Amino acid sequence: MVSWVYLSDIASHVGSRVALKGWVMNRRSSGGVHFVIFRDGTGIIQASFSKEAFSGEAFESIGKVPLESSMEVSGTVVAEPRSMTGYEIRVESYTLVQSAEGYPIGKKEHGVDFLMDHRHLWLRAPRQRAILRIRDTIIKSIRDFFYDRGFTLVDAPVFTPSACEGTSNLFEVGYFDEKAYLTQSGQLYMEAACMALGKVYCFGPTFRAEKSKTRRHLTEFWMVEPEIAYIDMEGNLKLQEEFVEHIVQRVLSRHKKELKLLERDIAPLEKVRTPFERLHYEEAIRVLNENGSDIKWGDDLGGDDETILTKLYEKPIFVHHYPRKCKAFYMKKDPIDDRYALCADMLAPEGYGEIIGGSIREEDINELLAAISNHGLKEEHFKWYLDLRKYGSVPHGGFGLGIERTVAWICGLHHVRETIPFPRMLNRLTP
Amino acid sequence: MVSWVYLSDIASHVGSRVALKGWVMNRRSSGGVHFVIFRDGTGIIQASFSKEAFSGEAFESIGKVPLESSMEVSGTVVAEPRSMTGYEIRVESYTLVQSAEGYPIGKKEHGVDFLMDHRHLWLRAPRQRAILRIRDTIIKSIRDFFYDRGFTLVDAPVFTPSACEGTSNLFEVGYFDEKAYLTQSGQLYMEAACMALGKVYCFGPTFRAEKSKTRRHLTEFWMVEPEIAYIDMEGNLKLQEEFVEHIVQRVLSRHKKELKLLERDIAPLEKVRTPFERLHYEEAIRVLNENGSDIKWGDDLGGDDETILTKLYEKPIFVHHYPRKCKAFYMKKDPIDDRYALCADMLAPEGYGEIIGGSIREEDINELLAAISNHGLKEEHFKWYLDLRKYGSVPHGGFGLGIERTVAWICGLHHVRETIPFPRMLNRLTP
Repeated sequence: MVSWVYLSDIASHVGSRVALKGWVMNRRSSGGVHFVIFRDGTGIIQASFSKEAFSGEAFESIGKVPLESSMEVSGTVVAEPRSMTGYEIRVESYTLVQSAEGYPIGKKEHGVDFLMDHRHLWLRAPRQRAILRIRDTIIKSIRDFFYDRGFTLVDAPVFTPSACEGTSNLFEVGYFDEKAYLTQSGQLYMEAACMALGKVYCFGPTFRAEKSKTRRHLTEFWMVEPEIAYIDMEGNLKLQEEFVEHIVQRVLSRHKKELKLLERDIAPLEKVRTPFERLHYEEAIRVLNENGSDIKWGDDLGGDDETILTKLYEKPIFVHHYPRKCKAFYMKKDPIDDRYALCADMLAPEGYGEIIGGSIREEDINELLAAISNHGLKEEHFKWYLDLRKYGSVPHGGFGLGIERTVAWICGLHHVRETIPFPRMLNRLTP
Repeated sequence: MVSWVYLSDIASHVGSRVALKGWVMNRRSSGGVHFVIFRDGTGIIQASFSKEAFSGEAFESIGKVPLESSMEVSGTVVAEPRSMTGYEIRVESYTLVQSAEGYPIGKKEHGVDFLMDHRHLWLRAPRQRAILRIRDTIIKSIRDFFYDRGFTLVDAPVFTPSACEGTSNLFEVGYFDEKAYLTQSGQLYMEAACMALGKVYCFGPTFRAEKSKTRRHLTEFWMVEPEIAYIDMEGNLKLQEEFVEHIVQRVLSRHKKELKLLERDIAPLEKVRTPFERLHYEEAIRVLNENGSDIKWGDDLGGDDETILTKLYEKPIFVHHYPRKCKAFYMKKDPIDDRYALCADMLAPEGYGEIIGGSIREEDINELLAAISNHGLKEEHFKWYLDLRKYGSVPHGGFGLGIERTVAWICGLHHVRETIPFPRMLNRLTP
């Protein structure tokens, strides 16, 4: 009885007899040997079935086994530099677990809708597995970053009681006899939590009922939102730079193979080292106007503006000090020029655009009340939030990073739909 | 200009002059010195303000500063074994950032509803901070456990298209022109993902619209759900044992102080070492009947049954091989006695009850079709799920662990409402 091993550990089994459990990804035959590219989910290997080792029938079956069939094989592992997988298992016995007749995804080009309808199977494609692994590493690197810096994870609620900033992009849920809304951001909750724990973050799904069908929009996406008591503008920007450098360098150190499979040029990623360029909003407008955008002072940057701007820089950039009127009510005003907010967005290079939005929050209750009123919001919706300014208010700030846009950028993907295992979009609620 | 440091690092600043930024948790005066218990979110310290160091007015203000006021202090750090915090800062200058007049939470006993209404402030209480830190460590230990074992995180969707198993406990959401439901489990999605990646897990919020007001129920709670291709019953139980041992021992190694503050007897936690006792369902019924329960063969265990049972054991136990008729359709039947399912629940000791539910899944499409029909479900709702049995089906299994029940058990809490930062319950949607 040979032991079941995972392909992630195969290097330590060279010369041994092992059992592998997985799937037939691909096969070819040559000179009396059937070669199967065998996947177990943790890696792939070339499995060779020689005429000598099997009866005629067993040998013939392998030559016809449908792709994606499940199979257990036993044999001896050898290093095989000529194989794309680096190793080979010389199969001595096998069991066909289930024959995958008619597997719907073939080598031919399928349309996006077809692949999306078969997302539960499409996940098995090498490209999709590579993206999912990188996504996993990005998320792990984020959690490690905050853990190493003494942040406490504080999960924000998904159900929120009132539509503080209008219902237009909110999903509404019947909550027993009330109505609830699905969260768009945990920030206000993190502001409460940072007064208790100093440095906190939430990390969960957020929701946006936008009727947009762009390559940057999902209705359900993951966001990480740190919030830090007593941080200032400079501290907030530095934290963001170090954070993004950490994520990108971690992916580079672990996923060269996956990035190569995705045909991602890693040169731009290798340049992601602090410090990042910082453009005042006014300067950004000037640069955009020079490069063909008709954006005017007071406008928020559109997707096209972000694309133009970020193609001009090799690394992520900050655009900071947006006009207060185009940003959220809770942002603190610039004490030097009160037309501006103490905020910054980080835009990823190569045309990817915004991955982070952040700011210092207004800590003065009177300023905050004025901002709520100026934005046409209702004070009664912010009762508990205002408590934070009554009882031990402190300067504080933070930011939010969108996971899917970050995955898209790092993996070099055109559309966010491949960045999340089961994407939800305007016309996509399945599988 | 002295540097701002965090109290988590205070041990390395003994003898130095530093600045601290935080809040006044408590104060007392004695012999010409005001002592403030000062919190910065990462730790607490005794801050001493002596009459000699301050003008009369500045000194007097400190003697009257409201609790939870925010304050910056500068001074010299000394080791002070007599102080409960181990260190003291001899304050040389301070700035009152904001005075928290009328902080609503006092030392007197408040009712639960009052505290829940002030959850945004209640989080600052030492007990709540201790629970949140332990929750953070539990979650980190879970992610580390799976990372170290080569699992890939695959986030399951929150929006699900159909109410596969009936709508009774589902939250319904208007999804543009369709209806969507909030997920109760990511398992079916993980079954798809484990065919691509071998060993996967999801970890996110899940939702249950139950009209129960028990100490074990939240409408929004977090669940971690691993799924493993080719795992068998024994492998699944072993993984769960090692998993729970890992979590508990990690908390013990890092949070003795917090557990003490919570008055948690750690002796039972120290006993959480593999292997755990395993009771066949039939045996569990017999033990329960002997101990006063009137449960009959075929019934699922109720909350009271779990309490009775788990008070009899020092460690978590498994109850395995439940009758198929009281469990979900996707569970594989016991090949030896088909009245039973290859499943197990893990019950936490000391009356806490179920923290894990798990099973081997039915991999044969015909058996699965029969089970769907026997459970009165509609085949059309499981179209993509059935694909997994057509194309490379393999034996597989997994489990789900509820975070809040685990936090309640480890922290020794009576009610799950304190286990999550912003609890959502039948009558609780705020703050």
